[in-house]
Amino acid sequence: MARIVMKFGGTSMAGSERIRRVANIVRRQQAAGHEVAVVVSAMAGETDRLVNFCREANPLYDPAEYDVVVASGEQVTAGLLALTLQALGCKARSWLGWQLPIHTDDAHAKARIESIDSEALLASMAAGEIAVIPGFQGLTADNRVTTLGRGGSDTSAVAVAAAIGADRCDIYTDVDGVYTTDPRIVAKARKLKNVTYEEMLELASVGSKVLQTRSVSLAMKEKVRVQVLSSFIGDDAVPADEIPGTMIVSDEELAKIQEDLDMESQLITGIAADKNEAKIILTRVPDRPGAVATIFSPLAAANINVDMIIQNVGRDKGETDVTFTVPAADLLRAQTLLEAQKEAIGYNRIITDSKVAKISVVGVGMKSHAGVASTMFRAMADRGINIQAISTSEIKVSVLIDEDETELAVRVLHTAYGLDAAD
Amino acid sequence: MARIVMKFGGTSMAGSERIRRVANIVRRQQAAGHEVAVVVSAMAGETDRLVNFCREANPLYDPAEYDVVVASGEQVTAGLLALTLQALGCKARSWLGWQLPIHTDDAHAKARIESIDSEALLASMAAGEIAVIPGFQGLTADNRVTTLGRGGSDTSAVAVAAAIGADRCDIYTDVDGVYTTDPRIVAKARKLKNVTYEEMLELASVGSKVLQTRSVSLAMKEKVRVQVLSSFIGDDAVPADEIPGTMIVSDEELAKIQEDLDMESQLITGIAADKNEAKIILTRVPDRPGAVATIFSPLAAANINVDMIIQNVGRDKGETDVTFTVPAADLLRAQTLLEAQKEAIGYNRIITDSKVAKISVVGVGMKSHAGVASTMFRAMADRGINIQAISTSEIKVSVLIDEDETELAVRVLHTAYGLDAAD
Repeated sequence: MARIVMKFGGTSMAGSERIRRVANIVRRQQAAGHEVAVVVSAMAGETDRLVNFCREANPLYDPAEYDVVVASGEQVTAGLLALTLQALGCKARSWLGWQLPIHTDDAHAKARIESIDSEALLASMAAGEIAVIPGFQGLTADNRVTTLGRGGSDTSAVAVAAAIGADRCDIYTDVDGVYTTDPRIVAKARKLKNVTYEEMLELASVGSKVLQTRSVSLAMKEKVRVQVLSSFIGDDAVPADEIPGTMIVSDEELAKIQEDLDMESQLITGIAADKNEAKIILTRVPDRPGAVATIFSPLAAANINVDMIIQNVGRDKGETDVTFTVPAADLLRAQTLLEAQKEAIGYNRIITDSKVAKISVVGVGMKSHAGVASTMFRAMADRGINIQAISTSEIKVSVLIDEDETELAVRVLHTAYGLDAAD
Repeated sequence: MARIVMKFGGTSMAGSERIRRVANIVRRQQAAGHEVAVVVSAMAGETDRLVNFCREANPLYDPAEYDVVVASGEQVTAGLLALTLQALGCKARSWLGWQLPIHTDDAHAKARIESIDSEALLASMAAGEIAVIPGFQGLTADNRVTTLGRGGSDTSAVAVAAAIGADRCDIYTDVDGVYTTDPRIVAKARKLKNVTYEEMLELASVGSKVLQTRSVSLAMKEKVRVQVLSSFIGDDAVPADEIPGTMIVSDEELAKIQEDLDMESQLITGIAADKNEAKIILTRVPDRPGAVATIFSPLAAANINVDMIIQNVGRDKGETDVTFTVPAADLLRAQTLLEAQKEAIGYNRIITDSKVAKISVVGVGMKSHAGVASTMFRAMADRGINIQAISTSEIKVSVLIDEDETELAVRVLHTAYGLDAAD
């Protein structure tokens, strides 16, 4: 017997027919002898509908009341899944965020989970009841409803798994696992059996939107084994205990798996593309101590994430061009802030470009291998793709290129690193 | 300064535009110096949508999970009204059923309110915050969500008014008060300035669906002054302190009002018609002690409300025909039960008719006046309307007639009792 948390997203919960499908998947796990808790999202589209109501009511909405409104979407699906499980003959009950409770801080609309009281939950599960828990929601110390921010249900699932000491947290999505790259771009992309937390974090942060980044961080911190798999597999196609998706594991666990299979560790695990970046160039910034701080302090204060930063040699002595990227959604805000600081920074011109893409190659294997970056640069140069900026981490190399060349770059790199599936 | 509870129904809460209208009405009361709590229904149609989801999930649904699902409708409108009030510059916050809490018994889907903790609510209102409370919902002793049954928001409003000692409970609906009869049937119907709790109960129970019966009973018990008025009056047409609707008061209060105005008490207050009854006749029931009990015990056990009962003299000695009415919605269930009991009861034939209507004349004035019933029978006989059954109470005379004659009967009686408005 194992203790399993299963999480289903909005697409899987969209309507009675799909909820019945989910209930059948859940029932199969229980029938296999496992203790099961299920975390659910709102029906696809419902959170948008509720957010829209809030905006219409008050464009500068109070996040505490916003939370009251939007948390209702998951409350509905939690009740409906419990009812559907009961219709299939299972014992089931819903546990709302304030009932467990799921304690959070009071940062409404983007709250962080602090702890989950698991005693009643574990007792109910031990008695054979399937626990159905709405994702995305929690409770402050002064008894008010919070939500965790968009996509927060993944985090709820991992937090519940940590709280009840689950053997596994299965995240059911509309893809059937994590791929070497987006299969819509590269037909020969392969599904990965395992990725490490760190790799998943890098992939998530550079545009592979399978899991919410926060949920992966939490899983890494709490050592929760997370599996990504599809809720659209046939009901009886897969035995309950087989692992049909991608398992996210620690470095050590991955090493052990590779050793057991007598497999060489892969240099590169995956390639991700992110079109949601925008580039800003400030020309002729005075080349003196503290100049860079005057650029980035106001952006940090405004909570704008700066990613890649390059300082180019300027045309004139004593001056330099500074290039960096921000999320495309924050470009206008960043631009306004920087224009207000024009004199303080002392730059000459501000140039922006949102038609850029960040291409990243990710893999824990590169830690111990030289030449990963040069393979990347060579492959791109051979196809005439111009690199505008470069940034690297322990397990990632990212480059900024023209957005129009995104698909070409991903295909070229997928082949260059030997990731293409055999025909 | 007064302390006022205002309640808005689903039609008033249907969409952002209407919620803004409601917020303006609420703000005007606060601007007049009153402490205000608002009780809201779900958006029109929303509860039906949620109930439908529950039925699809599980036709024999668990009422505890049903409550989790359907309570969400009022949670949404409570948050949205708080947001809208804030947008108008008011301080406002929502208080969900479990937050106050509103304690109920554990009869899920038809719970009864036991008590409401008002301390935090009163403190918030005293600090100038408008309290927005979702109607229809409560909390059991073991921390689970309940709902009060359809139309329960009126009851929530009266219960909140009683708990906080409100000076008035204003129920905003899509009509602008209680009329002498349905204005769609009788153009000369007049809006009543006052009715007593007892009259309102009789009117509510015989088809004048302005207020939920339970809410009137509770108001009578807790001596809450309830006003019925329209939420579709112009925003600035009526000063905040004027009473534009119908006030529901005690007998004593009504007598005092009439004395103050040097007004004679009206014999009849209103005339109501109810087409939701069905008639059942059991022929040739043995005329012996206990026979009637065998008929009505199984119906009572099945929670079917029997209303009018007449025992006709049968054709043969030692036998009698028994006629009675049940809600039309329960007719099939009642018929099935009675057919199962055919031998035990010993009747010959069962005849049913759902094409009947109950017409009632209601008024506290009739307590001290003879001749109310005979005026009724005379007026109907003059127009050839056949009376199939009669029942009376202290302040009501009801007759059962052919459904096709409903409108005719109401008009005839409205004139006969001198209720027609002057031209």
